[in-house]
Order: sequence, then C-alpha cells, then structure tokens
Amino acid sequence: MGATQDLARFLVETHSERIPKAILHEGIRCLINYLAVALYAARDPSLDILLDVFKEEGGKPLATVVGAGRRTSLQNAALANGYLGHLEDYDDTHFPTVIHPSSPTLPAALAVGERQGASGRDFLAASVLGMEACCRVGMAIHPYHYDEGWHITGTCGVFGAVGAAGRLLGLDTPCMVHALGIAGTQAAGVREVFGSMTKPFHPGRSAQSGVLASLLAKGGFTSTTAILEGRRGFAAVLSSKHDLSKATDALGERWELHRNGLKPYACGVVNHPLIDAMVAMRSAPGVTPQAVEHVNARVHPLVLELVDRQHPQVGLEGKFSYQHCMAVGLVDGAAFPAQYTDARVKDPVITGLRDRISATADSSLGEDQAVVRLTLKDGRSYDQRVEHATGAPENPMTDAQLEAKFRTLTGDVLPKAQAEALLAALWEMERVEDVRTVVALTRMPRRRHRA
Amino acid sequence: MGATQDLARFLVETHSERIPKAILHEGIRCLINYLAVALYAARDPSLDILLDVFKEEGGKPLATVVGAGRRTSLQNAALANGYLGHLEDYDDTHFPTVIHPSSPTLPAALAVGERQGASGRDFLAASVLGMEACCRVGMAIHPYHYDEGWHITGTCGVFGAVGAAGRLLGLDTPCMVHALGIAGTQAAGVREVFGSMTKPFHPGRSAQSGVLASLLAKGGFTSTTAILEGRRGFAAVLSSKHDLSKATDALGERWELHRNGLKPYACGVVNHPLIDAMVAMRSAPGVTPQAVEHVNARVHPLVLELVDRQHPQVGLEGKFSYQHCMAVGLVDGAAFPAQYTDARVKDPVITGLRDRISATADSSLGEDQAVVRLTLKDGRSYDQRVEHATGAPENPMTDAQLEAKFRTLTGDVLPKAQAEALLAALWEMERVEDVRTVVALTRMPRRRHRA
Repeated sequence: MGATQDLARFLVETHSERIPKAILHEGIRCLINYLAVALYAARDPSLDILLDVFKEEGGKPLATVVGAGRRTSLQNAALANGYLGHLEDYDDTHFPTVIHPSSPTLPAALAVGERQGASGRDFLAASVLGMEACCRVGMAIHPYHYDEGWHITGTCGVFGAVGAAGRLLGLDTPCMVHALGIAGTQAAGVREVFGSMTKPFHPGRSAQSGVLASLLAKGGFTSTTAILEGRRGFAAVLSSKHDLSKATDALGERWELHRNGLKPYACGVVNHPLIDAMVAMRSAPGVTPQAVEHVNARVHPLVLELVDRQHPQVGLEGKFSYQHCMAVGLVDGAAFPAQYTDARVKDPVITGLRDRISATADSSLGEDQAVVRLTLKDGRSYDQRVEHATGAPENPMTDAQLEAKFRTLTGDVLPKAQAEALLAALWEMERVEDVRTVVALTRMPRRRHRA
Repeated sequence: MGATQDLARFLVETHSERIPKAILHEGIRCLINYLAVALYAARDPSLDILLDVFKEEGGKPLATVVGAGRRTSLQNAALANGYLGHLEDYDDTHFPTVIHPSSPTLPAALAVGERQGASGRDFLAASVLGMEACCRVGMAIHPYHYDEGWHITGTCGVFGAVGAAGRLLGLDTPCMVHALGIAGTQAAGVREVFGSMTKPFHPGRSAQSGVLASLLAKGGFTSTTAILEGRRGFAAVLSSKHDLSKATDALGERWELHRNGLKPYACGVVNHPLIDAMVAMRSAPGVTPQAVEHVNARVHPLVLELVDRQHPQVGLEGKFSYQHCMAVGLVDGAAFPAQYTDARVKDPVITGLRDRISATADSSLGEDQAVVRLTLKDGRSYDQRVEHATGAPENPMTDAQLEAKFRTLTGDVLPKAQAEALLAALWEMERVEDVRTVVALTRMPRRRHRA
C-alpha cells in the first residue's frame, strides 16, 4: 500500500471517537482563531475584488463568506474564506514546516459542512483530519520544498482542503484516493508573489481546489491512485528530496497538530518574545511608560536584521519595528491590529518610550527567545527572560488569551452579542447538531470597510 | 525591463494589424481543429461530471460549453471547454515543447469573447497572442520542465489563457503584468495523472485559472511584477534550468505558432507516418485490401516499443496497434475516431489485412519518418517513403484535410447544416462582427452520449 492509500484511509476511516480529545479541542481553537482573523480581514476593501467576480459570475447561495452578507457557491466561498484567513498573516502556524493549515482547510470544511448541514462533531473531525493531512504531506517534503521557492501553504493546502471536504461529502476510500489525485495535481503557489494580494490568494485557491476535487471525485471523476508516491507525482515533482514515511508513519497516533501554534500578536514572530517580556514586566512595581529610563534587549540576530526601525511612520512599519512592538507591549499590554494603526505609531507616549528602547544581538539565543532588562529612572531594574514566545508549541496561547484575541478582532465587525454567541457556540462545537446554526453567526449583512 | 513586462507588452500592445496574415490564418485553423475535437469529445459521458458540479454550484449563463445546451459562468465554461479540447488527445501540438496550446487558451478566449461580444478579429488576435505566449514560456523551460514530471500544457497553459482573456478584457500593460502573476502562480499539473480524466482536466483548470486571473487583475488585485524572472518565480521554481530569452527574443517577429501542428489521425503520433504511407498507396494500381500479399514497414524503434499489437480487441487498443493503424489507412483512407471503435477493430477485412502487416526497427529513421513496402499477390510492389508525417510543421495538414477532420468529428454531434454554417463562419472569422454569432453554432441542445 502506498502513501496515498494510507492517507486516504486515515481521512475516511478514522472514527471521530478515535480522535483524541486534545486534538478536537485544538481543532476548536484553530476554528476560533481562524474566524477571528478572517472576520477582522473581511473589512479589507480587497475582499470586494473577489466578491465582485462572484457577482459577475454568479453562483447558488450555498455557503457563507465570513464577515459578508451574502452566500455563494461552495467553491467561491472556499476561495474567499481561504483568502481572508491568510490576509493579515495572523493565522496559525505549523512550526516545523511554516504551513498555515487552517486557512486552506477550514474554509473547505465550512463550505461543505454548511451545504451538508453537518454536525459539529463531524465538522470538527473532518477539519482536524484535513489539517493533519496537510501538515503530514508538508513534513514529507520539508525543508526542500519551501526552500526551493514554493509557498507550502498553497501547495500542501490542497490536501487539507480535499481531506476535509471529501470526508464531509462521505467519499469512500477509493474515491478519496482519486480526490487526493485531483487535488494534488492542482497544488500551486510560488513565493515570488509574497507582499501582494496573491499570497493570501494561495490558501484560497487551495481551499477551492480541494472542494472542486472532492465534488468531482464524488461524481466519479478519475485520477492517479499514487499522487503522493508516484514517480511523477506531487512529492517527486515539487521537491528535490522527500521522505513519505513522514507523511504516513503513526497516522492517528502521533499528531502534527500538537505542533501548530496560534499567534498572539499581529506582527512577525521574531518580535513575539520581546512583546511577551514587556507584557510580563508591565505589572512590576513602579513600572509606567513615564518611569522607564531605558530598556535593552538581547535578541536573536535576526531581530536586528528584520525589524530594527526606531521611527516607524505608518502602522504597517510598526510591525517591522521591534521598538514599537516592545513599546505597545508595555503601554497597551497587547499587540493587536489596533496597536499597528497610523495613529498608534505616532502616539506621543509610544514614541517617547520607543526612543528609550534598544537591542543587542546575542547568537546564543533562539528565535523565540529574548532577555530584556528594563531600568527605571529611580534606579530599579527588572530582568525578564523568555524561553519560548507565547504561541510556540511549547508555550501555547491559553484559551483565555485566544478569547481576548477573538473579542478584539471581531469587535469592529460583528455586533457584540453576535460575537459572544458565536464564541460560545464555537466552544460547544462538539455538541452542535447542525453547523449552519454556527455559520449563520459569521455573517455580517452590513459590511463596512476598514477605515 | 524583465521578461514578464516584455510578455505583457506583447500581449497588450501588439496591434492586430501587425500580426502576420499567416498567423491569423493559423489561428483560424487551430480554432477549427479545437472545435472539431471538443465537439466530438462533448459526447463523452465524463463531461456530465463537470456539468453536474456546475449545476450544483450554479453560475450565470454567460458562456457556452461547446457541444452542450446550456451556458454557464466564464470560469466554468473555460474549465469544461479546456477539458473537452484535450480529452481525445487529438488537439494541436507545439512540436518543440509538446504543449497543446489551443486547449488551455481558446476556451479562455471563447468564454471572455462571448461575454464581451468581441469581434472576430479581436478574438483571433487575442487567441494567437495567447497561444504564442504559452509556447514562448514553454520554450524557456524546455526540456527540463517536462522531463522533471510537469504536464507542460497544464502549467504553461495559464499564460495562454490569461493572455487571451486579459487582452479581450482590455487590460492595460501594468494590469496584465499582475494578471500574469496571478495566473503564473496557479500553474500546476503533474504527469502522474496521465491515463486518467485528470489529464485533460489540466488544460481545463489552466483555462479557468487564466480567466480568474484576468478578472481579478481587472478588478485591481495585485501580484508580483516578476512572475517569470523572479528569484522565486515560475521559471526558477518549476524548472531546474531556464532561459527566458527564449520567451521574449523577437516577440512579434518570430512566431512559435509556425511550429504548431494539427493531428490528422486519432492516435499517437508515432503511427502517423505509417498511416500516411498507406493512405498514399491505396490509389496505386491494383491495390485493394484483398490483393495485398504483405506489407513491411521500416520504422523508428519507438514504434515497436509503444504500438506493436497484432490483435487489438477493443477500439482503444487499436490506437496502440501500428498494424491496425496501417490497415485502416489502406482500407478507409483515414484514421478518425470511427476507425478506433470496438466494431472496427473486429471487422474481418481489417483483421485479415492486419495479419499481413509487419515492421522492422530502423534507427536511421526519425520519429515522423517511415519507409513502407507493399507487395501484391500478383508480384507487384510499391515503396513509399514518408519524410515528415502529415501534421508536422514541415508537412502541415491542408485546409481541405482539416475540413474533412471537422466534418467527420462533428458529424454525429451537430446537425449537418449547423456544422457547415459553423465551418463557413470560422473561415470568415476575421470579418465576424460579434463572435456570439459563431459561438451560438457550437451549442447542441439535445446532447447525446457516445454509444
């Protein structure tokens, strides 16, 4: 039996009762995180470009675009929702591969789950199995594949999407094998497009490819039965080296989802241990922005290479300024999108503190580590060492932190009561009878653009 | 200026008056050939799988699925028509790269052309520019790309499709640059799926990707401006070596379309010189199937490797039997799909002749060459040497041969009067005011499945 067959069996034949509780809980956390960032992103004007094409092309109102008012076809909804998941670079990250498994997978599950009126439990099972398949395929070709220029979320995303969609459509194993073939040969996305709208388009297109593949396979469309292991299949063609045992060994026993992290802060991960340190020190005696004499951090050398910017002028530049990230960590105790607005980077309290922050490279530190010394004007000083930044698999966001992220990101999008109802329903997902009741809470009929 | 910019300028800024007459004529021939094979393929039951998904998903009736009754969205029509173009492996071939440029490009042009009510001349210009772009990009990565496992029609097809669709949508050059980026990062398709429905799905998906890319770019969606030449762009990531000067040198002066061939026979090209020889000898004095004592051919060694099958039992096997191909060449003077039915491979006249046909490998011969000696029972013998099989760029099908192919393939699909009206309109394409009048003739409201 080949890897494709093994993966198909895992996706189809794993009974939901056999999925560990902790994995189902992680699935819920991924869903909450996904919806938080997608709902926030739905206010971006670029979503209109997609919605206008959907309007021009038409489609039955079968599935919801998160944060929008209208429903559209399964494929369109998957495309838009995959786009929204990744638009803010604020989605989950599978640490070993840098895949963002939620953005291609959950939109496919949401579209088909809504269409089918799936139970919350079936929806969750399909979602975590799909995300696991996505990460497992990634493991088999990592690090060569990404290093060679592929956007691994776009390419491996098709396996997550087709796994989730195909399972919810009730494909049997032989049919899933063909669905994996149809999806796998659509794998695409190069890193050259980073920095443009086409980057988040990748998981959108993956989600759509997976939905299309599962619909075609269900109808009897044929493909290769060896898309993963074939001599001219996915792994051989899209990576200079591969090891498919990493895709299939101990499937259902060992879970890559345990190494999937959620981002607490709306900026690049190199800033995260620094923000963590500042958030921790803000409750130390005597610490106020005005009382600070200076702050010096010892950091992984990459920090100075990537995010050394003393005077950011606009919000986006704030994300690339460790000084700004540390300042808002101390002043606001957070680094949500609200901390990266044009207004916030010009706030006098922030700019005043920023000027007193510096950093020194220390190659003995890891990328998710930092050591920060904060000295007050009165002479007192505090040291804070961060071993693993929040959001790393070794130090995951707590459920409470995730709730705060959800509430903050959805605050300007959904009415408060709707957001709270959605959050409560999501935590109860395993007992939801029909996911349509939950999906309905992600709609925002009167969508407003972000200012 | 980079290769992407050069290609975008070629696609947008080449005035249709500057396109050589011979190239526009070749465009018409490609269109006639494409429609012949697509209309024939439209009777295949597998088309229903696509049409059922379209019905399930919905879409405005904007563009025609060739050989079907209903219209659907631009993207759906492009997907189905790309599929139909390649389903019978009977579409055109760009000899240097083995790209089939019509199947991904013309469906994109047809969908957008119908939507816009484009003139025949604009439609033709967009089509030949798109096909040229497709072949040019292929030249830059050939032969590495195909050898490394990519289905080059699927990958490079996106450039043909977006070129044609984007031009018909009136994109300006900067916008076309982004459209090329959105399309190029969707390039996909591995050879592992050969032998399944997913192979013809590739140009379908390419056509759809190109249409989607052009619609998004028109709406303001952004992408890389260097999809071809970027360090992590299409050429660098999808091929171990590349030479982009082959994509851009003398664009508009030297045309790859001159090296695009149309297939006269519904079987693999290695059989073609043998069929040519038999067709030529059937008019020699005294030659009848019954009068033949034996036939011996000297052939390129690949013939014996790929298509040596003395006793094919079903129609499909006949395509992989040089003996059958040669027999029908002599008896029918043709090798259309009708020559590869289950009934035809069992016909006593054919099977009787097949038994008297043999071949010997001769490595001095090229793949499109053959030498055939036919000996009659009365002792007379004829020798026929074929230097270049019909359909090779050095020996193209005549317009009359193409008309015969069109009439034969559409004979069971369209009413005769409709087929003749369509053929006449296609030859007059440069003077057609609105392509919708032509496209309407490709519809077949009462579609019947092939027996």
